[in-house]
Amino acid sequence: MTFNERVRSVITQKNSLLCVGLDVEVNKLPKSAIVHNRQFEFAKRIIEETSPYATAYKVNTAFYEAEGHQGWETLESIFDVLQALPGVISIADCKRGDIGNTARMYAKAFFDKLGADAITANPLMGSDSVEPFLQNPKKGVFFLCLTSNPGSADLLQLSLGQPNLSVYFRLADMVESWNGGENCGLVVGATKPEIMGHIRRIHPDLPFLIPGTGAQGGDLEKSVLNGTDQFGTNALFNSSRAILYASDGEDYAEAAARVARETRDALNAAREKKVKS
Amino acid sequence: MTFNERVRSVITQKNSLLCVGLDVEVNKLPKSAIVHNRQFEFAKRIIEETSPYATAYKVNTAFYEAEGHQGWETLESIFDVLQALPGVISIADCKRGDIGNTARMYAKAFFDKLGADAITANPLMGSDSVEPFLQNPKKGVFFLCLTSNPGSADLLQLSLGQPNLSVYFRLADMVESWNGGENCGLVVGATKPEIMGHIRRIHPDLPFLIPGTGAQGGDLEKSVLNGTDQFGTNALFNSSRAILYASDGEDYAEAAARVARETRDALNAAREKKVKS
Repeated sequence: MTFNERVRSVITQKNSLLCVGLDVEVNKLPKSAIVHNRQFEFAKRIIEETSPYATAYKVNTAFYEAEGHQGWETLESIFDVLQALPGVISIADCKRGDIGNTARMYAKAFFDKLGADAITANPLMGSDSVEPFLQNPKKGVFFLCLTSNPGSADLLQLSLGQPNLSVYFRLADMVESWNGGENCGLVVGATKPEIMGHIRRIHPDLPFLIPGTGAQGGDLEKSVLNGTDQFGTNALFNSSRAILYASDGEDYAEAAARVARETRDALNAAREKKVKS
Repeated sequence: MTFNERVRSVITQKNSLLCVGLDVEVNKLPKSAIVHNRQFEFAKRIIEETSPYATAYKVNTAFYEAEGHQGWETLESIFDVLQALPGVISIADCKRGDIGNTARMYAKAFFDKLGADAITANPLMGSDSVEPFLQNPKKGVFFLCLTSNPGSADLLQLSLGQPNLSVYFRLADMVESWNGGENCGLVVGATKPEIMGHIRRIHPDLPFLIPGTGAQGGDLEKSVLNGTDQFGTNALFNSSRAILYASDGEDYAEAAARVARETRDALNAAREKKVKS
């Protein structure tokens, strides 16, 4: 089964479009927990409690690199937990991209050593820079296409001089051309649902990873309408802060589970509305 | 002293435009060395022997991440060695770039925890994604502008629909606008010296980090002519594989020193030719 087939399959099995973002910030953890590695314990508890509702977990590497080599050990422990869970997709949100011999090292770091099912990558440097990521059809790559932040106006939203050819369209076309192994997807931010819908119509088969519906303010229902395919699937909606920090007390994992369940249900309500209409 | 002032100052003190790239691949190390951490020992010996000739060291993080958390420990040890050396610039070649709260974590990882003087970064996501990197004028950021690989034709070399407005020109303009703290530079590959000269004429004050003169085939003399400023300075020329693997025997560090000295001299000969002409 290729990575892209697996995305659709797990969405169906779990009946969920939810991706839980593990952007675990050490400063935001409950102070009272006296454990060896609070960042890992927190992430592990979140995974345990939210896994009935989540199709995927997106682990933002920056939050662990900020803790140095101990943080990288935490990353390894988190991916061990994710690999032991049947039927979830683990995504290392690392946004890497570099020339071929360096990209080969990043592929080794995230796919082989860490055991991630997928990574996020930055396509700026073009074809030969992403090739080492695409060798194994079981391993997926979500490429930045249109991001949810204001700075996407600086380059990503510029026109390449032809009608309907913005930088983000060009990036999506590049990614489509790399999708021979059916293991490429797009990162499309939730803050511009109309553009998202346009990209989706041109690229019905690419899975979308959609951040930005939570703290960043993107509209969830509009994002589902525009980001899923005609069957209301093939998209993962990431929520990080709203789930992780649903409670700042010791009940954080139970609170996270409640918000994860509600978010899954809200996503499912929106896709039903879309498919019925 | 701002980072950009420091680049010019160290180039003058050392009389060298050489940046040694520490892309230390474990599989390429001499087999006979029986030490606890061969990757670190190799890097340390290279630094010790080449430091008379090098203005900067660029540490490619991918080659260490590929070794997991032990690799990140090696990174920390290497930056400890570099920080203890007076008068060299340490660059973490990590090409990071993400939304603001994530970029803040990367800044912490590389500037605070690792102690790098500078990083490389990917500007694709625009202004707010790079802001956390620019807070301290003593810490520098080299942004990808025009890379040395064939895939730079896929997006970086495309026109944005106006004469003389390619994506790389747009990126360079963005970086210039971020340079209020005098701590921004550009990564400009050596494989397209004419374009490099064009970018240099528009941006005389931005330091250039120039990879690609070694294994990637860029012409060293043409790159110096086009990449340095009118005084033959303000550019760092990176060489990795040609120096690191100058010998595959136990004399690797001495061989690296010889190639580093020769490369420094060749760079200086080229800049003298430029300044005299």
